[in-house]
Amino acid sequence: MVYFFGERGKESRKLLGGKGANLGEMTRIGLPVPPGFTISTRVCMDFIKTKRYPRYLEKQVESNLKKLERKMKRKFGDEKRPLLISVRSGAPVSMPGMMDTVLNLGLNDKTVKGIEKESGDPRFAWDSYRRFIQMFGDVVLEVDHAKFEKILNKRKRGRKDTDLKVEELKIIVSEYKNLVRRETGKEFPSDPKKQLKMSIDAVFSSWDNKRARTYRKLNNIPEDLGTAVNIQAMVFGNLGKDSATGVGFTRDPSTGENTPYGEYLINAQGEDVVAGIRTPKPIFNLKKDLPKAYRKLMKVYKLLDKHYRDMQDLEFTIEKGKLYVLQTRAGKRTAQAAVKIAVDLVKERMISKREAIMRIDPAQLDHLLHKQLDPKEKEKARAIAKGLPASPGASVGIVCFTADRAEELASKGKDVVLVREETSPEDIGGMSVSKGILTARGGMTSHAAVVARGMGICCVAGCEDIIIDEKKKTLTAGEIKIREGEWITLDGGTGEVIEGKIAVVDPEMKGEFRTLMKWVDEFRRLGVRTNADTPEDSKRAKDFGAEGIGLARTEHMFFEGGRIDSVREMILAEDEKGRRNALKKLLPMQMNDFLGIFKEMNGLPVTIRLLDPPLHEFLPKEDKEIRKLARKMKVSYQKLKKKINFLSEFNPMLGFRGCRLGVVYPEISEMQVEAIIKAAIKINRSGGRAFPEIEIPVLGSLEEAKFMREVIERIAKDLIRKSRVNVKYKIGTMIELPRACVVADELAKVLDFFSFGTNDLTQTTYGFSRDDSGKFIPKYIEKGVLKKDPFQVLDREGVGSLMETCVKLGKKTNPKIEIGICGEHGGEPSSVEFCHKLGIDYVSCSPFRVPIARLAAAQAKIKNG
Amino acid sequence: MVYFFGERGKESRKLLGGKGANLGEMTRIGLPVPPGFTISTRVCMDFIKTKRYPRYLEKQVESNLKKLERKMKRKFGDEKRPLLISVRSGAPVSMPGMMDTVLNLGLNDKTVKGIEKESGDPRFAWDSYRRFIQMFGDVVLEVDHAKFEKILNKRKRGRKDTDLKVEELKIIVSEYKNLVRRETGKEFPSDPKKQLKMSIDAVFSSWDNKRARTYRKLNNIPEDLGTAVNIQAMVFGNLGKDSATGVGFTRDPSTGENTPYGEYLINAQGEDVVAGIRTPKPIFNLKKDLPKAYRKLMKVYKLLDKHYRDMQDLEFTIEKGKLYVLQTRAGKRTAQAAVKIAVDLVKERMISKREAIMRIDPAQLDHLLHKQLDPKEKEKARAIAKGLPASPGASVGIVCFTADRAEELASKGKDVVLVREETSPEDIGGMSVSKGILTARGGMTSHAAVVARGMGICCVAGCEDIIIDEKKKTLTAGEIKIREGEWITLDGGTGEVIEGKIAVVDPEMKGEFRTLMKWVDEFRRLGVRTNADTPEDSKRAKDFGAEGIGLARTEHMFFEGGRIDSVREMILAEDEKGRRNALKKLLPMQMNDFLGIFKEMNGLPVTIRLLDPPLHEFLPKEDKEIRKLARKMKVSYQKLKKKINFLSEFNPMLGFRGCRLGVVYPEISEMQVEAIIKAAIKINRSGGRAFPEIEIPVLGSLEEAKFMREVIERIAKDLIRKSRVNVKYKIGTMIELPRACVVADELAKVLDFFSFGTNDLTQTTYGFSRDDSGKFIPKYIEKGVLKKDPFQVLDREGVGSLMETCVKLGKKTNPKIEIGICGEHGGEPSSVEFCHKLGIDYVSCSPFRVPIARLAAAQAKIKNG
Repeated sequence: MVYFFGERGKESRKLLGGKGANLGEMTRIGLPVPPGFTISTRVCMDFIKTKRYPRYLEKQVESNLKKLERKMKRKFGDEKRPLLISVRSGAPVSMPGMMDTVLNLGLNDKTVKGIEKESGDPRFAWDSYRRFIQMFGDVVLEVDHAKFEKILNKRKRGRKDTDLKVEELKIIVSEYKNLVRRETGKEFPSDPKKQLKMSIDAVFSSWDNKRARTYRKLNNIPEDLGTAVNIQAMVFGNLGKDSATGVGFTRDPSTGENTPYGEYLINAQGEDVVAGIRTPKPIFNLKKDLPKAYRKLMKVYKLLDKHYRDMQDLEFTIEKGKLYVLQTRAGKRTAQAAVKIAVDLVKERMISKREAIMRIDPAQLDHLLHKQLDPKEKEKARAIAKGLPASPGASVGIVCFTADRAEELASKGKDVVLVREETSPEDIGGMSVSKGILTARGGMTSHAAVVARGMGICCVAGCEDIIIDEKKKTLTAGEIKIREGEWITLDGGTGEVIEGKIAVVDPEMKGEFRTLMKWVDEFRRLGVRTNADTPEDSKRAKDFGAEGIGLARTEHMFFEGGRIDSVREMILAEDEKGRRNALKKLLPMQMNDFLGIFKEMNGLPVTIRLLDPPLHEFLPKEDKEIRKLARKMKVSYQKLKKKINFLSEFNPMLGFRGCRLGVVYPEISEMQVEAIIKAAIKINRSGGRAFPEIEIPVLGSLEEAKFMREVIERIAKDLIRKSRVNVKYKIGTMIELPRACVVADELAKVLDFFSFGTNDLTQTTYGFSRDDSGKFIPKYIEKGVLKKDPFQVLDREGVGSLMETCVKLGKKTNPKIEIGICGEHGGEPSSVEFCHKLGIDYVSCSPFRVPIARLAAAQAKIKNG
Repeated sequence: MVYFFGERGKESRKLLGGKGANLGEMTRIGLPVPPGFTISTRVCMDFIKTKRYPRYLEKQVESNLKKLERKMKRKFGDEKRPLLISVRSGAPVSMPGMMDTVLNLGLNDKTVKGIEKESGDPRFAWDSYRRFIQMFGDVVLEVDHAKFEKILNKRKRGRKDTDLKVEELKIIVSEYKNLVRRETGKEFPSDPKKQLKMSIDAVFSSWDNKRARTYRKLNNIPEDLGTAVNIQAMVFGNLGKDSATGVGFTRDPSTGENTPYGEYLINAQGEDVVAGIRTPKPIFNLKKDLPKAYRKLMKVYKLLDKHYRDMQDLEFTIEKGKLYVLQTRAGKRTAQAAVKIAVDLVKERMISKREAIMRIDPAQLDHLLHKQLDPKEKEKARAIAKGLPASPGASVGIVCFTADRAEELASKGKDVVLVREETSPEDIGGMSVSKGILTARGGMTSHAAVVARGMGICCVAGCEDIIIDEKKKTLTAGEIKIREGEWITLDGGTGEVIEGKIAVVDPEMKGEFRTLMKWVDEFRRLGVRTNADTPEDSKRAKDFGAEGIGLARTEHMFFEGGRIDSVREMILAEDEKGRRNALKKLLPMQMNDFLGIFKEMNGLPVTIRLLDPPLHEFLPKEDKEIRKLARKMKVSYQKLKKKINFLSEFNPMLGFRGCRLGVVYPEISEMQVEAIIKAAIKINRSGGRAFPEIEIPVLGSLEEAKFMREVIERIAKDLIRKSRVNVKYKIGTMIELPRACVVADELAKVLDFFSFGTNDLTQTTYGFSRDDSGKFIPKYIEKGVLKKDPFQVLDREGVGSLMETCVKLGKKTNPKIEIGICGEHGGEPSSVEFCHKLGIDYVSCSPFRVPIARLAAAQAKIKNG
């Protein structure tokens, strides 16, 4: 259960943990790794279960330690040439929350003298001893770290660590030992074997501490993996000018360029690089400082990069001119670098296309598709508040507090950030012209968030740190007050709100990115469409590779420009005749909407959803607005107010909306179908191709489906017959109710397609309102009662189970039925994978997520076949 | 395909329709039925399919007509002794919407003269002719009925029908014929055979008209039943003083007493009785008027009652002293009569208990359990408005417009009717002391309706005819204005609102009712519990036969008396400590609530649901109230308002409620569990028995179930251990989310019981908000898109399918799991049947519905085994 470095390699990650496996691997391929051994993860699990060590362990550790002593020609606890070791944890998957590292283990009042003599550097010896007690005291004995720092700072009196004299270090060591005695009631352990045993204990126990358990739960890491313990001979980068320590990357982790990257400090120990007391130098300088070690290091870079077939992040130490490698792992990288490295590796014939595709985290691609804050400027700025990173990108603009004002300022060429308590469909106009949107309420799937993502506008939502005073036109965050017209910057990637202006950089669509996306399309089975309501969005999505429109929401069109007047006239009409009159005015406008989209999509399917939201969403809520409308409509304020009250709902999400509108007022659907089919006829007549898929929203029963199909076909067939132009179209529904899922066999008999509206389906299945669940979902996640927000990552067990039922039943009665998904999940990688497994035909997502969905679809296919 | 009366009897209902089968049956058992024959339902279906008659039909009609002529010694179309016939439709199930009856068929300008001579009564002859043209013109030729009436009224000049002279009748006949020519473009058919053929056509075609189709759709009547046509020799009750026509009931349809009942008119035709121009005499008078016919009729009564083993409703005609029976069928009866007759028939050894149980419509029982308006007084009153009959019974009281005012007036001993735009949980106090509740908004399952039904208070909901002005304290319905303090009467059985006071009669709990309910319990398998929140309700329900409490809502207890203050203090607390302080005050009060209920139910299971509604429901909404509360709580109005705004929700139904409260604020659940267990300990210690079933609301995931079970068990076990008193308890959940249904196997691993909350489950499955669906559900039903309101009758296909999944999955992992239903459906007969088939353990409903549920459960068992 204990393996000396080199006995096993990277294939043994599960047994030896990531760190141990790589140390073994590097030893095996002949890299200069200080010798050591790994206690395997199985021991950890035995220890957790039985609270004691297996009998064989002591023996095996003993024999490996002996081997290490022989290799190093030193002895553990020896007063002349003591062996010093490091003890490090290393689980099969990277996992914060566990005990990390103890360095310089083996030091005590006697061995420190041996080091003193041997190195000829008493300061080095006592500083190492001081560091060891502090580290061991902190991580193994659990004495508050701050208490050590307090003693140290008192002695430093404002000087640097390195200014401490040997005598001062000795005093600190003695004060540290006193502290440990006070805090633990026991002497600091001086027996190196005891030190080692206690460290191993601490590593194993930390696997089971609360932080680690919570982390595993949240990240779906199995409880029974366990952690390994790596015990390694110490080497020292702080033994003079010919010693150094540093970190390296085999390629540039920021750009992905195939050039060596890294930094180092001369005469320093590993922790100094991280502590940031001295500024490390770029790796290139090492060529001058220690040319021999540099040449050796460059060889190591090459070897590791090639051997692991990926960019590596390594730690190294140079002890008196001799290079040692202490760790290697796949390096973290920017999205841009990830793509470039993956594509380069294929070109270098190191990996296959398939591997390249699997190397990219789809979520990371997001960064490639949006503007970003200039990292340098951002470093200097401080966020005044933090909300939810609801829609990525960055935006800089002057603050305003109403959609109208946003439109006004934007029309004058100003860059505007719209700040609202929350947004509503009435704000669409103002939102669409804003550079960014900031709301104080609402979650990741609130109106603001969804609309902003759809429009590709940066949005920070649910920022509860800010207080908005719409009347006074101010925004307050703590001490800071920002007035209308003042500058503000939003970072949609982090949710940060920054006072003032920060430079923004445009994303570069690199050649490697295009290459990768081409490969992706060779692998995926799932189609990828987009959710788009305008010709502009349609074009953008097509550029990103969308193969059709999976959801065009017609209600967005109802808000634009002067249309809202006709819409309101329709809603407030006393009878069908009045409604038909108002609808007649809307007809040519809707037709134009569809013309533009059909033209853009030229023959690709365009799913058009009939009017969905409850009618009251189109009416004003504020008294002032109601009075204004009353004057315009020439009705009394009282009458209008009464009508608005009558239409208002307790639970609009479950209210008079979707196809319920179409059943009660078929004339609305008739107008929309007329607009769709007339536009299609016009396109086809002029030699183009239009392929509308007419979608019935919020459908729950066969009877509704039949009723609506009859309305749609009556209009469509009549128009097509009269026009003598052939128009292919489909009639289907959005599946957003649990009932629709369980009666899908019935529905499929009369419908040509299903499209899962998983936002609403999640709401009804879970009984979670998107707009309100912000009050408890974060707490749920904190308490581990929810792993992920089901509005972000599809809930496979609940919602997914209903989707499975729906697909199974639907295909039973209509094997040719086309099935897609158009909820927010359509662009979320894990949900895309689920859709792939479900065997549906396509996913649809906002234009900016199309490349992500394409990549996720390819990965799903590669993973699941 | 054509059967002469007597060839087949009541066993041939499907073939001959109800009417034809009974005419055949009566002929067979020797009753004096005018001869005739029935064209079977199969011919109808052939006709509908092929739009033409089968070849054999003409021959068979011809030969039966010949037989009829021989029997009657008359000839169809004969100028001397013409045969006159009636043509009537008759489907296997009673079905309005089809063509009904043509009388006197066979008359034309020639045969009328034959009748004139033969009867010696020209007026009779021409009046018959006039009636025939009108009836035929209306139902066969589809000439607007009003147009005939117009001609008739013009001639009558204010006189009665019977005042018309022969000459005038002749003019009318000619004008009628002109009308028919004008409207149809054809002469009125004078050939009797043509008349007959056209009538048969009309009957068959009417099976397929829109009204009939819609009726069948709504009532689940198969499309392929078809209707029969009955052709029968005419007999005349209007041939002088020794002729009469009437209807009879073999028992009293109002009380169920075994005494003959009925009424008749001397010298009249059947339609005159219905038309109500003359007042018919009670059947008993016939003894004097026509003693011989009366004796004969009484024999017929006895024979029919015995033969059909049920109270019969018959039509008879006496032609010149000779009695004829024209129709018989099971008679419609009041609830009281239904019960008495069924029980009497068992005692008379005519039917079995099983049959008696199946004879009662459970919905009818409702009437036996509530106060009713005195029928005589009600007859005279006129409703000023009509709403939904939301909770049965009748109530009389003075109007008031706020819950507070209701409590104030009630405390002074006044009978109060609470009138609200809609009610909210804040109104509970006022509602509970009111005699009746009237709301202008909300449906059959609105808050007012549900609470009123639970409390057994009469309620008319969603009465959109009325306009409420809360400020001016008036209620307006059309021209009528009612002020606070004025009297109003509600009929919860019809939804009528009546101005002023009407006498109310108490329901009599007759001995037969008790007998029947005892029999019912011998048959049913399903348990029946009740939904009750107070000791009073618990007692009432137990008296009605409830075997436990299936739902006690703890939030109702939160509103009572001074508790609301502590509840609000808890909600507005800044931290857990503040919440715990406020909860401490609530603890003894909640404990008392449970003590009372446990005592009443003495050992029967009591399902107690932990706090369910979103917290904002406990906070005031009106500005004035908020200011008042702010003063009381000693916080600023702004702060309070902000908190209330923060807590408010877009879709409260899908919001921060149910176990979400318990997960985020476990201290609330802890207090409730403490109150439950402490109360149970106290009861058990004093020798009683308490059996709480602790119910977690709005649960959707295994993680929530585990979390809540842990909280509940921690408190419960600790208290029980310390008390050294044994308390049996269960932990379970209300199933009200689709997700809970599809992960029921997981949930059942950690829970002891499920209880379907089908109100909410219907909301989430269908995506229908109970409070808002009133806007479209009536339209849905009108258009045939919904058959029944799914909040009233369980939707078996959708909601039921999820319930099936839930039961199946739940029993898979926990075969012993107890499963019930506590939604409104628990007291609705068809839903109870579904629950029986589902194999669950019990239904739970409001106290007043317990007998209905018991009966429905017995019927379900008898029907389905």
